Amino acid sequence: MKEETALCAAIEGYFRNEAPAGVRKAVEAAGKDHALSEGYPYDAALKGKPYREANEALQIEIVKMQAWARRAGARVAILFEGRDAAGKGGAIRRFSRNLNPRGARIVALPKPSDAEAGQWYFQRYAAHLPGPGEIAFFDRSWYNRGVVEHVFGFCGPAERERFFRQVPGFEAMLVEDGIILVKLWLTIGRAEQMRRFLDRARDPLRRWKLSPIDVASLEKWDAYSAAIGETLARSHTALAPWTVLRADDKRRARIEAMRVALNRIDYEGRDLKAVGAPDPALSGPPDRMPLAQE
Amino acid sequence: MKEETALCAAIEGYFRNEAPAGVRKAVEAAGKDHALSEGYPYDAALKGKPYREANEALQIEIVKMQAWARRAGARVAILFEGRDAAGKGGAIRRFSRNLNPRGARIVALPKPSDAEAGQWYFQRYAAHLPGPGEIAFFDRSWYNRGVVEHVFGFCGPAERERFFRQVPGFEAMLVEDGIILVKLWLTIGRAEQMRRFLDRARDPLRRWKLSPIDVASLEKWDAYSAAIGETLARSHTALAPWTVLRADDKRRARIEAMRVALNRIDYEGRDLKAVGAPDPALSGPPDRMPLAQE
Amino acid sequence: MKEETALCAAIEGYFRNEAPAGVRKAVEAAGKDHALSEGYPYDAALKGKPYREANEALQIEIVKMQAWARRAGARVAILFEGRDAAGKGGAIRRFSRNLNPRGARIVALPKPSDAEAGQWYFQRYAAHLPGPGEIAFFDRSWYNRGVVEHVFGFCGPAERERFFRQVPGFEAMLVEDGIILVKLWLTIGRAEQMRRFLDRARDPLRRWKLSPIDVASLEKWDAYSAAIGETLARSHTALAPWTVLRADDKRRARIEAMRVALNRIDYEGRDLKAVGAPDPALSGPPDRMPLAQE
Amino acid sequence: MKEETALCAAIEGYFRNEAPAGVRKAVEAAGKDHALSEGYPYDAALKGKPYREANEALQIEIVKMQAWARRAGARVAILFEGRDAAGKGGAIRRFSRNLNPRGARIVALPKPSDAEAGQWYFQRYAAHLPGPGEIAFFDRSWYNRGVVEHVFGFCGPAERERFFRQVPGFEAMLVEDGIILVKLWLTIGRAEQMRRFLDRARDPLRRWKLSPIDVASLEKWDAYSAAIGETLARSHTALAPWTVLRADDKRRARIEAMRVALNRIDYEGRDLKAVGAPDPALSGPPDRMPLAQE
Ligand SMILES: Nc1ncnc2c1ncn2[C@@H]1O[C@H](COP(=O)(O)OP(=O)(O)O)[C@@H](O)[C@H]1O
Ligand SMILES: Nc1ncnc2c1ncn2[C@@H]1O[C@H](COP(=O)(O)OP(=O)(O)O)[C@@H](O)[C@H]1O
Ligand SMILES: Nc1ncnc2c1ncn2[C@@H]1O[C@H](COP(=O)(O)OP(=O)(O)O)[C@@H](O)[C@H]1O
Ligand SMILES: Nc1ncnc2c1ncn2[C@@H]1O[C@H](COP(=O)(O)O)[C@@H](O)[C@H]1O
Repeated sequence: MKEETALCAAIEGYFRNEAPAGVRKAVEAAGKDHALSEGYPYDAALKGKPYREANEALQIEIVKMQAWARRAGARVAILFEGRDAAGKGGAIRRFSRNLNPRGARIVALPKPSDAEAGQWYFQRYAAHLPGPGEIAFFDRSWYNRGVVEHVFGFCGPAERERFFRQVPGFEAMLVEDGIILVKLWLTIGRAEQMRRFLDRARDPLRRWKLSPIDVASLEKWDAYSAAIGETLARSHTALAPWTVLRADDKRRARIEAMRVALNRIDYEGRDLKAVGAPDPALSGPPDRMPLAQE
Repeated sequence: MKEETALCAAIEGYFRNEAPAGVRKAVEAAGKDHALSEGYPYDAALKGKPYREANEALQIEIVKMQAWARRAGARVAILFEGRDAAGKGGAIRRFSRNLNPRGARIVALPKPSDAEAGQWYFQRYAAHLPGPGEIAFFDRSWYNRGVVEHVFGFCGPAERERFFRQVPGFEAMLVEDGIILVKLWLTIGRAEQMRRFLDRARDPLRRWKLSPIDVASLEKWDAYSAAIGETLARSHTALAPWTVLRADDKRRARIEAMRVALNRIDYEGRDLKAVGAPDPALSGPPDRMPLAQE
Repeated sequence: MKEETALCAAIEGYFRNEAPAGVRKAVEAAGKDHALSEGYPYDAALKGKPYREANEALQIEIVKMQAWARRAGARVAILFEGRDAAGKGGAIRRFSRNLNPRGARIVALPKPSDAEAGQWYFQRYAAHLPGPGEIAFFDRSWYNRGVVEHVFGFCGPAERERFFRQVPGFEAMLVEDGIILVKLWLTIGRAEQMRRFLDRARDPLRRWKLSPIDVASLEKWDAYSAAIGETLARSHTALAPWTVLRADDKRRARIEAMRVALNRIDYEGRDLKAVGAPDPALSGPPDRMPLAQE
Repeated sequence: MKEETALCAAIEGYFRNEAPAGVRKAVEAAGKDHALSEGYPYDAALKGKPYREANEALQIEIVKMQAWARRAGARVAILFEGRDAAGKGGAIRRFSRNLNPRGARIVALPKPSDAEAGQWYFQRYAAHLPGPGEIAFFDRSWYNRGVVEHVFGFCGPAERERFFRQVPGFEAMLVEDGIILVKLWLTIGRAEQMRRFLDRARDPLRRWKLSPIDVASLEKWDAYSAAIGETLARSHTALAPWTVLRADDKRRARIEAMRVALNRIDYEGRDLKAVGAPDPALSGPPDRMPLAQE
């Protein structure tokens, strides 16, 4: 408990004393609303009603997709990546809400154990790839090496270089083997991240979820930005492309994540109208999307 | 898709032509509300507001519990068992809603593969026991052998006998080893189960989730009742007791499940007032609770 | 390499300066021969010719046994336990010499990783139990907790007590589940152990195999004896009995190990005459056999 | 037992009635000796004494190599491939003879289970890669797809193409990750293979080891030759080169396998004189070595 209190204090302190003035202002202006980042294509967050309607149609399609995957023995892996507080876990929760848990798994690996740290880097992830009929949601993934491990020095530059050299080949193998691999990068603005951290710090329910890494990452916004930019540039391939999603507005981001994924999975009976087309203002390839908005 | 349509038709057909008259009447009387089983201690389902209030207080405690488990290296396994449609998955979802996924896993194993079927029965479950700092929610568990495998003949009588001989020792080992083991049995009345199946059949979102086993189980209510009674009687031990929960009202059942579990886990900083005492009219040991209510 | 030299020196030093006089004398008297412990039932080690003859007949039976196991889907686990240098690895090598490796595994687990250390004690062993058609040879086993972990303080007294409480139940589960479990304890005299350590220290081929634990164990002969006595007494059960084997003469011990095991496995076509009866002077239950002979 | 008798009869029958005349003659001429294939660089098999001497020196180096691997956390994977009866298992046994089993594993996977068959092809192998300090000997490997799976139609042409496309990248990843990967292909002449099968068929000890695949493979010599040629050509890369070893003379092949491997592993204290240089007449890259000698 002590620990949490210290983390909360650190976040409040950072906000008051260290955060860039623009960030502070944007957070204050947002109040309880999302602080939509510069150039965010909508003025306000999606309202409850259109959100629920869009969600409902998508849920049916998701359930159909799983039914097909089970019948056809398809294997689906969906990676959710993004900065701390970008909304990865929440998006996965909504996506998997109606799935049969006997064929849908959330893979949220903790930091590698001693034994794992000495293995082939991809080995522990390989063990959790989906089998026939399974959908695996990765809440963070092997991309830890590209960003958080780099920013915090958990891996050295040689290891990171090797990761970048290997990752396209690794993913190509999975895709060629028939695994459907969807890679989603949730991106949020700096003010919105700040706001979410403050939210967590002030909410007894979520306060406990703050990690020392979250706090430390506040000051490392630019290091993160650089690491993310490089990671996306070096791992966006024809066989395993990234889709970057503007996630300042959580609801829109969740809807968009489902849309993007379902558009990529060619399941039997897919109703593209029900799924809806991805919104080019909200999602797209890395070179078209902002990655580090204040 | 064909398959689902057939399952839905089978459920509707069973309801109209085969279900006991009392069940049919109760379902019709309930309409969109829960069909509370005979002797259910409350007249009506819990309203949204008191549900949300109770839930909120419990969520904070759950999050504290996980924070403690991570600090202390505690291992927590919570088993959710019960008939089809009893609400196991939904209860787990609410319970784990705010947990850090990197230390909380849902274990929902599919039917054993060929290789697994030849192993020591408990082996594949043993591989998913919680490690230090982890909470594992079992959506069904090794108790499959006591009920569904028996009712459908997936195991023979000798295997089942052996299961009953072994399960108390197996669980005692885990508990003595320091694993906190909470075993929850969600029980619903026959009319409410019928109603939920019909709900699923009529809801495109949930229709796909119906399995042939669900449909077949409708006619096997009594075989299930017998198997459940025997299972609970033979596996309710001092070290690993069952708590049976009346789950006709989903909201009350979810709240009660959290209460029962948190009362069993002695985490640092536990606020027993916030947790609340289990309700003896809703939960208790097998010998005090109804298991097969029409 | 430095390390090995130090270990060798320690062994030589112990031999010259600390070993009980009786041990020293017996080692010197033995020279290159085995130092047969007090009461060993034969005057001299088995000669090469009778050894090869007995071995050949047994090898055929072992191969038949595996062929049966594969056909019948039988699961066989053979535990080899005993003090350092008792000959566990060598006995396993001869036993498995002609087996199809695709159905025969040697399980020689290293010391538990961090992650494993926090799990249910039996969990990492359970993962290596034989599946249908498989034979698993355990070179050391869960009995580490009874002896080496105790002698060196790698586990506390409470953990050890718990181990003793659990092990009969754990093994009973496996046996009732149909796993054929053979538990062999190889026992050697103190002089013969000393002689083997010296041999290793003087042989460049085997010098590298000496571990700090081996050296330290020299002085702990009595602590080992007590731990072994207690372990055998508390884990010798009707369902999973121990067979203690006098292993001063390696050849006799290897033959006897195969005989004891094959007498316990009722495979199709077993030729009991070819297998041969165990020699009551060489093997038997713990209460009939010496465990700590100088 | 019946089954074995039939396999033996099939082998004898093939030998008498179907084998090419040249093969038959060579087998008859060889008698109990190896039937050295055309162009084999030595007139006769290696005698016992020089074999033992070479072996002894190599064993010391192997043990030093493991000691280094454990200290340095090195990871070593040695693949043994080759036709049936080429001597893979025997070579591995001699190689690993003096190794500490707690850091040396033989990986001899059975045919994939249902669940494994549906996964990423390399997944089940990835799970057995060596960790820090470990040496893994693969008795057959992922190359099954290149040869036996192809010859017997266990995989389709598309799967095989994919395998060939993926294997260089897969191995490059391991090597770049720091795993020392040695790939040995043991090649024998057709007469010598025939002779070994007959030997097995006539030896009660080894008869049981004949598999239906062995028998069927006799007639498929040419299909094997083609599959092997293609496999080696397409998977011999700069990062993970093959060494082809003429294995008609088992002793020479075992010595050569150790030499080749130790020359590839740069362990501390390596005594290259003790190891000895590989013999260019016995081993070399695929393009320099015969692969299908009658
Ligand atoms: N052939 C089988 N052998 C053993 N268990 C089975 C078999 N078929 C289904 N089961 C188990 O029966 C349980 C109920 O099945 P089902 O109703 O389809 O799943 P759920 O209740 O999770 O929707 C599941 O745990 C499933 O693994
Ligand atoms: N720190 C430890 N905790 C638990 N077990 C240990 C520890 N260190 C060594 N052991 C175990 O003690 C046993 C004896 O060790 P050692 O003599 O080094 O191995 P071996 O007899 O196999 O040569 C091994 O099974 C090893 O795993
Ligand atoms: N149905 C199958 N699918 C894929 N691989 C198979 C199948 N049947 C056998 N194999 C593989 O073919 C190889 C050769 O089989 P076999 O000759 O029986 O074994 P071994 O050479 O080990 O004695 C083995 O690696 C085995 O796993
Ligand atoms: N020492 C470490 N080495 C590698 N990864 C780590 C380490 N510490 C934390 N991480 C990872 O960093 C990510 C963010 O951490 P957290 O914010 O604590 O959830 C998680 O995926 C962690 O597994």
